[in-house]
Amino acid sequence: MSDVVSLLAQIEDTGRDSRGPGYQRPGFSSTERELREWFLAEASRRGMDTEVDGNGITWAWATTPGDNAVVTGSHLDSVPGGGAFDGPLGVASALAAFDELEASGALERAQRPLALAVFPEEEGSRFGVACLGSRLITGAIDADRALGLKDLGGDTFADVARDYGLDPNRIGADHQRLSAIGSFIELHVEQGIGLINTDEAVAIGSSIIGHGRWHFAFSGQGNHAGTTPMSHRADPVVAASRVIGDIPVLAAAHDQAVATVGRTLIHPGGTNVIASAMSFWLDIRHADDAVVTQVLEAISARAEEHAADTGVEVSISQESYSPTTHFTAELNERLRSVLPSAPMLPSGAGHDAGILAPHVPSAMLYVRNPTGVSHAPEEACEDDDARAGVKALAAVLERELGAGGSTGSEGSGPAAGSGVNGGVR
Amino acid sequence: MSDVVSLLAQIEDTGRDSRGPGYQRPGFSSTERELREWFLAEASRRGMDTEVDGNGITWAWATTPGDNAVVTGSHLDSVPGGGAFDGPLGVASALAAFDELEASGALERAQRPLALAVFPEEEGSRFGVACLGSRLITGAIDADRALGLKDLGGDTFADVARDYGLDPNRIGADHQRLSAIGSFIELHVEQGIGLINTDEAVAIGSSIIGHGRWHFAFSGQGNHAGTTPMSHRADPVVAASRVIGDIPVLAAAHDQAVATVGRTLIHPGGTNVIASAMSFWLDIRHADDAVVTQVLEAISARAEEHAADTGVEVSISQESYSPTTHFTAELNERLRSVLPSAPMLPSGAGHDAGILAPHVPSAMLYVRNPTGVSHAPEEACEDDDARAGVKALAAVLERELGAGGSTGSEGSGPAAGSGVNGGVR
Repeated sequence: MSDVVSLLAQIEDTGRDSRGPGYQRPGFSSTERELREWFLAEASRRGMDTEVDGNGITWAWATTPGDNAVVTGSHLDSVPGGGAFDGPLGVASALAAFDELEASGALERAQRPLALAVFPEEEGSRFGVACLGSRLITGAIDADRALGLKDLGGDTFADVARDYGLDPNRIGADHQRLSAIGSFIELHVEQGIGLINTDEAVAIGSSIIGHGRWHFAFSGQGNHAGTTPMSHRADPVVAASRVIGDIPVLAAAHDQAVATVGRTLIHPGGTNVIASAMSFWLDIRHADDAVVTQVLEAISARAEEHAADTGVEVSISQESYSPTTHFTAELNERLRSVLPSAPMLPSGAGHDAGILAPHVPSAMLYVRNPTGVSHAPEEACEDDDARAGVKALAAVLERELGAGGSTGSEGSGPAAGSGVNGGVR
Repeated sequence: MSDVVSLLAQIEDTGRDSRGPGYQRPGFSSTERELREWFLAEASRRGMDTEVDGNGITWAWATTPGDNAVVTGSHLDSVPGGGAFDGPLGVASALAAFDELEASGALERAQRPLALAVFPEEEGSRFGVACLGSRLITGAIDADRALGLKDLGGDTFADVARDYGLDPNRIGADHQRLSAIGSFIELHVEQGIGLINTDEAVAIGSSIIGHGRWHFAFSGQGNHAGTTPMSHRADPVVAASRVIGDIPVLAAAHDQAVATVGRTLIHPGGTNVIASAMSFWLDIRHADDAVVTQVLEAISARAEEHAADTGVEVSISQESYSPTTHFTAELNERLRSVLPSAPMLPSGAGHDAGILAPHVPSAMLYVRNPTGVSHAPEEACEDDDARAGVKALAAVLERELGAGGSTGSEGSGPAAGSGVNGGVR
């Protein structure tokens, strides 16, 4: 039995960013593979049977596989320069919760199968589409479109997946595997300030607010920085930068809306070269999908204006969009019965649980982050809060498994009449 | 004897940009090395003795080496996504001019030594310092500072130079070799519109206007793009982009000033990540050094304002600065006597000849560029203009070598009383 803190310590040196603090754990990279091997070894050490499915999702079965399974897990990839907890906290907590359930004898009493799952490329840092693994299994992204996605090095997802040991012909919607999930519960570090001024270490997710990514591509006339008069220029860097500079004002016109540019690309990118092209990726989020559209329209209109003013062309394309998702009400009611003091928190961040929610009962637990910072090295989680997260997750899983000691029958939830066929291990 | 057009055709496929049109020929790369090998083979085929000096400058001696040498050449590296002519036109024209001088018998009559030279890392695309080879031989850059320069991959110039076959202990000012140059003439494709509306294919360089590079580094608070309210952000991308967007207006306040940002760097650079840092490199040029300072001060003040408004820090450092350089008057008088109809053109672009000019008599010839575009794939040079450039260069070299047929004595220029010790080959 390993403590969640010591489990995280086992991987604290894997994928450290050589350029600064934080981590570089891109999807389908050798680093993510190393982390997956760590998870597989930890699962095997606990006697779990493991498998990697056609979409690269790693499964560890705590009991005999079967329908109406209770599944918990998260991801191991990071954003560039990310923190230590976004993803790994949920995976390490799943392992630690397994240990608690086994130690308490709850696994012996389980009425439903239990599995741990690790999703690949949750951040979308490599191929531009967040939650790629869960989007694939649910069919939220078309397999052919996904296979054609390219990373910055020009490698397609098809090639990278093949290198990762996947068969491109097996990538895509997997309704059989999906329909075997009876409840999915993802534990995750909180990514804002939602729990800082409370006495609670753990919250229950209410919803994931709508969010999307758009690609803005400006093209002008490359030229020499020294010999081209200012009046003769068609500089895409100027046009794109003016748009980026205006975004905070355009977003702030809508209460609670957020809009961000964190990634750009200049071609060719020489100090003494007027660029011929510049792209940026825009991330917009709001609980009201109509507001997301309004913010996008305002920024797009501004992009057209600045492009026209500077004599460059702009084209705008959507890379992904997820409307506001509410987690499953019945499942959340059961979580609240186990964790009555936990606040309900909406999330501005996307998660695999949000992609799964329209297809299978899904829920999330958030563990307090004392800095309120995420996607950065300052992301934090106190040891005691991480342990409280494991206790909460174990209690929720026990309830879902119908493995409560004195309250066994009430604990089985939706499993009661739904033909459980997964036995205990 | 090879035509300049067919010489250029020999290297037209070397270093093509795999991501788009144009070339990728970074300094000290395997591509630049391949181009250097091509030059060495062409020089050897013509019976020239070749050597690479301590700073990576490649020399080919058309005659016995000696003092008061006439030297011509240029560079073979390119900016990222650059054109086919910036650099290679001068090297190919040097080889073709040698052929003309040999065919006409002028080499037999030469009163001074003749050498061809190829300078490394002229664009500064790799280590950030333009004209690195000529700055090193002249001592315009301190050797220790140069050896510590890093490329974007984190490799130091010392390491890269060692891989290139250079001894880091021999890198730096080389007064002995420098003082052996009696005249340096660089032929280069014109990089603006200076010859488009004239009947002339060739111009003589009058000056290189002052230019410098500054690094602007903004640092803020990295965070999650979805969970951080707009009002809680300290986003360096917003601050830096606002500055870039303002630069054209600030530069245009000064007649003839140009200021450009063609290269930026965002850390960590994720779509769903508020960045913690953004840098850009600023290139400013004007014939009046005081104006360069004024433009820099205006942009720096604006950077401080935008940084303060967005809650981020900014630091500004100079990477290089070259004041306005006038080519050597006496040498230019001799060029004008050979090319009486050639216009005199100032250049907004830096060149190795401009770095050498304060140390040895230096001059430049520019060959018409019908697009007026440079540092981009659209950079152009008509075949007939390239051939006219070779004829002009050969005429100038013949004059400098004191090898004129009927006017031999008047042609020897400054060599007359300066102890020529280089014999003909």
